[in-house]
Amino acid sequence: MRPSGRTPEQLREIRFTCNYTKHAEGSVLVEFGDTRVLCTASVDTSVPRFLKGKGEGWITAEYGMLPRSTHSRMEREAGRGKQGGRTLEIQRLIGRSLRAAIDLKALGENTITIDCDVLQADGGTRTASITGGFVALSIAIEHMLKTQRIKKNPLHGQVASVSVGIYGGVPVLDLDYAEDSQAETDMNVVMNDAGAFIEIQGTAEGHAFRKDELNAMLELAELGIRELLDKQAAALQAAKTPAAA
Amino acid sequence: MRPSGRTPEQLREIRFTCNYTKHAEGSVLVEFGDTRVLCTASVDTSVPRFLKGKGEGWITAEYGMLPRSTHSRMEREAGRGKQGGRTLEIQRLIGRSLRAAIDLKALGENTITIDCDVLQADGGTRTASITGGFVALSIAIEHMLKTQRIKKNPLHGQVASVSVGIYGGVPVLDLDYAEDSQAETDMNVVMNDAGAFIEIQGTAEGHAFRKDELNAMLELAELGIRELLDKQAAALQAAKTPAAA
Amino acid sequence: MRPSGRTPEQLREIRFTCNYTKHAEGSVLVEFGDTRVLCTASVDTSVPRFLKGKGEGWITAEYGMLPRSTHSRMEREAGRGKQGGRTLEIQRLIGRSLRAAIDLKALGENTITIDCDVLQADGGTRTASITGGFVALSIAIEHMLKTQRIKKNPLHGQVASVSVGIYGGVPVLDLDYAEDSQAETDMNVVMNDAGAFIEIQGTAEGHAFRKDELNAMLELAELGIRELLDKQAAALQAAKTPAAA
Amino acid sequence: MRPSGRTPEQLREIRFTCNYTKHAEGSVLVEFGDTRVLCTASVDTSVPRFLKGKGEGWITAEYGMLPRSTHSRMEREAGRGKQGGRTLEIQRLIGRSLRAAIDLKALGENTITIDCDVLQADGGTRTASITGGFVALSIAIEHMLKTQRIKKNPLHGQVASVSVGIYGGVPVLDLDYAEDSQAETDMNVVMNDAGAFIEIQGTAEGHAFRKDELNAMLELAELGIRELLDKQAAALQAAKTPAAA
Amino acid sequence: MRPSGRTPEQLREIRFTCNYTKHAEGSVLVEFGDTRVLCTASVDTSVPRFLKGKGEGWITAEYGMLPRSTHSRMEREAGRGKQGGRTLEIQRLIGRSLRAAIDLKALGENTITIDCDVLQADGGTRTASITGGFVALSIAIEHMLKTQRIKKNPLHGQVASVSVGIYGGVPVLDLDYAEDSQAETDMNVVMNDAGAFIEIQGTAEGHAFRKDELNAMLELAELGIRELLDKQAAALQAAKTPAAA
Amino acid sequence: MRPSGRTPEQLREIRFTCNYTKHAEGSVLVEFGDTRVLCTASVDTSVPRFLKGKGEGWITAEYGMLPRSTHSRMEREAGRGKQGGRTLEIQRLIGRSLRAAIDLKALGENTITIDCDVLQADGGTRTASITGGFVALSIAIEHMLKTQRIKKNPLHGQVASVSVGIYGGVPVLDLDYAEDSQAETDMNVVMNDAGAFIEIQGTAEGHAFRKDELNAMLELAELGIRELLDKQAAALQAAKTPAAA
Repeated sequence: MRPSGRTPEQLREIRFTCNYTKHAEGSVLVEFGDTRVLCTASVDTSVPRFLKGKGEGWITAEYGMLPRSTHSRMEREAGRGKQGGRTLEIQRLIGRSLRAAIDLKALGENTITIDCDVLQADGGTRTASITGGFVALSIAIEHMLKTQRIKKNPLHGQVASVSVGIYGGVPVLDLDYAEDSQAETDMNVVMNDAGAFIEIQGTAEGHAFRKDELNAMLELAELGIRELLDKQAAALQAAKTPAAA
Repeated sequence: MRPSGRTPEQLREIRFTCNYTKHAEGSVLVEFGDTRVLCTASVDTSVPRFLKGKGEGWITAEYGMLPRSTHSRMEREAGRGKQGGRTLEIQRLIGRSLRAAIDLKALGENTITIDCDVLQADGGTRTASITGGFVALSIAIEHMLKTQRIKKNPLHGQVASVSVGIYGGVPVLDLDYAEDSQAETDMNVVMNDAGAFIEIQGTAEGHAFRKDELNAMLELAELGIRELLDKQAAALQAAKTPAAA
Repeated sequence: MRPSGRTPEQLREIRFTCNYTKHAEGSVLVEFGDTRVLCTASVDTSVPRFLKGKGEGWITAEYGMLPRSTHSRMEREAGRGKQGGRTLEIQRLIGRSLRAAIDLKALGENTITIDCDVLQADGGTRTASITGGFVALSIAIEHMLKTQRIKKNPLHGQVASVSVGIYGGVPVLDLDYAEDSQAETDMNVVMNDAGAFIEIQGTAEGHAFRKDELNAMLELAELGIRELLDKQAAALQAAKTPAAA
Repeated sequence: MRPSGRTPEQLREIRFTCNYTKHAEGSVLVEFGDTRVLCTASVDTSVPRFLKGKGEGWITAEYGMLPRSTHSRMEREAGRGKQGGRTLEIQRLIGRSLRAAIDLKALGENTITIDCDVLQADGGTRTASITGGFVALSIAIEHMLKTQRIKKNPLHGQVASVSVGIYGGVPVLDLDYAEDSQAETDMNVVMNDAGAFIEIQGTAEGHAFRKDELNAMLELAELGIRELLDKQAAALQAAKTPAAA
Repeated sequence: MRPSGRTPEQLREIRFTCNYTKHAEGSVLVEFGDTRVLCTASVDTSVPRFLKGKGEGWITAEYGMLPRSTHSRMEREAGRGKQGGRTLEIQRLIGRSLRAAIDLKALGENTITIDCDVLQADGGTRTASITGGFVALSIAIEHMLKTQRIKKNPLHGQVASVSVGIYGGVPVLDLDYAEDSQAETDMNVVMNDAGAFIEIQGTAEGHAFRKDELNAMLELAELGIRELLDKQAAALQAAKTPAAA
Repeated sequence: MRPSGRTPEQLREIRFTCNYTKHAEGSVLVEFGDTRVLCTASVDTSVPRFLKGKGEGWITAEYGMLPRSTHSRMEREAGRGKQGGRTLEIQRLIGRSLRAAIDLKALGENTITIDCDVLQADGGTRTASITGGFVALSIAIEHMLKTQRIKKNPLHGQVASVSVGIYGGVPVLDLDYAEDSQAETDMNVVMNDAGAFIEIQGTAEGHAFRKDELNAMLELAELGIRELLDKQAAALQAAKTPAAA
């Protein structure tokens, strides 16, 4: 029995509030249950030094948690003077995952920075960040097309992410904090809309997992990601359509 | 004529969404028009070293802006490895202002940290932070009383803050970004509900201001702060009252 | 009764030792009683990035305290690896105040850096820094005119600063450390020689101040600043005049 | 055809030089072909703060690359003032992997720090670090048993790691730099001697991988890790046995 | 011919202004010609961790240059966020040199920090710092004896320092900046009043020096240091004697 | 009697393993007994800013110790976020010493960085670094000549370094850790193959040394350095000669 009463293959309630902020070219407040992440996509007409003059663009991501997004208050990274290993690891993961959805040549010499800031954490902040980050990115791309900064859409598909794990001996989908902190195994999976894997990160601090457990988790992940991809598409569609009077 | 169409003595629309997050002892999303700040109050049963063993508590504040809360993206302070001078200056101001509302001895050996994180900036983020910070602090104090961490309310009044300035030669209240970036003089005022001043910070990079201009601005500030104090009280009252069925 | 025996409206003994060091284009050792600050003005033929190519100059300030300028030794900021919030706040204030005295366009693409280093602290180091900083700046400008780096004087007036506060219930001028550490209210005022305000920063951690107290303090400040402006002018005049044989 | 001429399921030449340094409680120079990592295990009779008084020990890891361990010289992290995200990510991975092999309660209140310093890099430094780190850890544990710092062996198995990837469309084992920099997919696998997974990290920046490709890679990994576990055991055995005259 | 017109074995004019600041237990403004260093000695009733409970004291030194103490303005180390290698090297040298003059056991569990801050640099700031640092230290020790923080004088002699070098092929004493920047060889020598060496640091970036040149330089150094020791003693004596009416 | 059983004028066993790593233009593993330092020389076709456009090259050095190169583990400097004073002091010394062996104009606009990383420390790491650093530098220069990056050899001689000290009242050569930690006086000497001094750094924390002790130490140093220069030359010769079949 899951603490939330969900069935093993059930996602939390997923919500996308597109255009949550007014300054960013793309933005969305994504919620996976009580996990709430503000994702913004900022377009900049320059590229990192290693890409200068190559006619290619870049997607990069940054991640942060507000100090009291968590159960007990964490020290502010800006105050400590450095980002922790977990933060750096997560933002590298988000960046890699989103780059997998885009043709960097078609993006031209532009950089899009995806900022994922966790307003409230309840497990799965990195998978929510990737899933919401893709939505913010898509809105920004749409904006670039409309304002003719690029001519053709560089996105070649969708990307979403979910966590799976083994909780109480049972493979479960989309772990919340109550499960995550108790899970024997935790795996984050990123997939595209062609059903292929972009990233798999599975960790077993407590209990090493067998091949059959791995397979059960991967199947759950596929299921969940398909659902997330649908919800992303619906949210993006709704954001484009002017609301009826 | 103000860019927003407001009259000189008109505040922007003010909104307090109390209990915006679930982990913090006190929280509020405060909005001054398009300026949106998430304020949380975190209670910790310890005090900074300089207060150890004195039987007193402490109120401190931290301030941050999400990278794309602003018109163009700012570098993340956690990534740069240090908080800028403006950030430190603002968080010191918030802390001093809120300490003026509380009897630190009555707080006992507890520290309350007020985190003010700007989700969207449109001028006046520091005054919104102080005004919202007081609401988050009050909710946290209420929580401490209910859970009997303290016996009596250490707050001895309310505190709120607003900006005033001279825009186009006219003293105006509660400047938004369009005004702020053009104003000849900018002043932030913090007052309590007894109508006394806690902090005055007036700056004239362009045009030095005369005594009569100062007085006109201070009168506007008094007016605006009285209105803000009323709205704070109403929001706190509503947060306490269970919503009718 | 003031600890120093001064009357409420009496400044401490003010001394300017112009050209205290030989390398800087402008320098002065300024003393407000036992508070002793070495101010130097360094001219550099370049401007910060945000001004490149605009045909304008810049004035910036840095502030530091020697570790044992204070009653008990403070940790050296260079050793701690960062400047504290108080330091950053003060140097921003000095910079803004001095920029208010100068026509940046007339300065041409030059940057003048004012370094204010406190050799001995006894209250009022920031007001002494602004007041002395103006003298160092003036000497440097004089030097630029003589060496024909600029054609016309970009200064359009004088700037000076003093603190006022309420000590023992009485408004007093130019607080020394003994008063400052006990004052209920402390205010730093920066004015120009036209009698207009450039900066007002009033703080009440203990006792919130009323409008009439504010006015009494501002009157004292005006009085004190007028005296300081006279002393600045005299010191600058003496520095220009070759000593008689 | 692999650049090194190896068959797809062939490891590079693996060497363990146990007790490479004289100060550390455990040490080994591990070589995966031209990749050369010095692993030391240092025992300290204290634990991190979060474990104080719990009667448990801790295993932690640190990772570094000598500036010219790579093809072109990298900036020294100690000089830059911070460890990069890749470094932090790798040392977190090494620590987690080795903790999976040990009963922290049986370790008592001791911390073992595994330092993995890359003397020469040619692909697979993180898998060599884990595999060598386990050997250094085992020697240190042996030393603790001999010197009676602990009574019973807290290790409950072996841990080793290898990379697999898809190179030129073919799944291959233990990628060297020439392959790694060209691979479409790269996966690091950590397993124990019971054949279960401790960590799987698969990344596809270029080409998303299908389930069947994932399975092919995992099979290769299993094969390689079994071989590495045998070589670890042999090296540890040889280190214990005094060389014959 | 030396730029200053001095003979090869002639020191610059040496001045000690004892008790230059009022807060420090010991202070002196030392001048070697135009090189001007403010040395303060601060007594603290604690010791660094590695000495806790050993009944011994410690002498440590810190060194800094004001940004415009030099010909062109240097960046402030507090702003850069770290002390440079030269600074750290010099403060380690000052600390070692002064520790050689004192019986740390007789000092008891006290730490004396010598701060050497260069107000104006014209060559030889490190030798002036050591020579002045000894004076500040002596005054602080005197103060500790008078206030009975220690019972017997822990100083077992005097320490002073001077630079020597080869300038224009000729060994010279006490190089000023004009010489220092042109010298083929530069050597800093620290000696005690028993005529023994505490530290010798000789450097030849340009021209390697022969044994006979070394000997000539050492003889000059001995000569100069004897003179400095006399001047230290006289200054300390004068500081003790109340000025006649 | 020396702890190692050596005579006072006896070096430890010296070994140079040339071309220890494959990426660097020059590399050597140098051993002074149990002190083991990996020196690499990296060639870069650019120069520091202060040399841009002057047609000169630069030699710089960096130094580091692996955390467990020492008896008890040291904190990793990359983790602490800064290099300590000792590290900076040593790398400045290595750089200066090697620059004394080369004609920077003949090097052209190239920078050679010498990295000296201590794998195992047993006293004398800085002298081993200089002595090995010269070997790595020579190999890199040889490589530049062969690949025609430079036309003529910019080296104008050899450089080596050794420590001397007074141990148990007796002057001894090449101190190991057991001696170094007990020595009354410690001196590092750098000389060239013309028998002239490049650097002398003598320190007496405990016992100040007399002129005759200084001379005895310098004579030992000369002796030892002559031997080291011979071994360097032999190692470089062997590295050039293809091994016989």
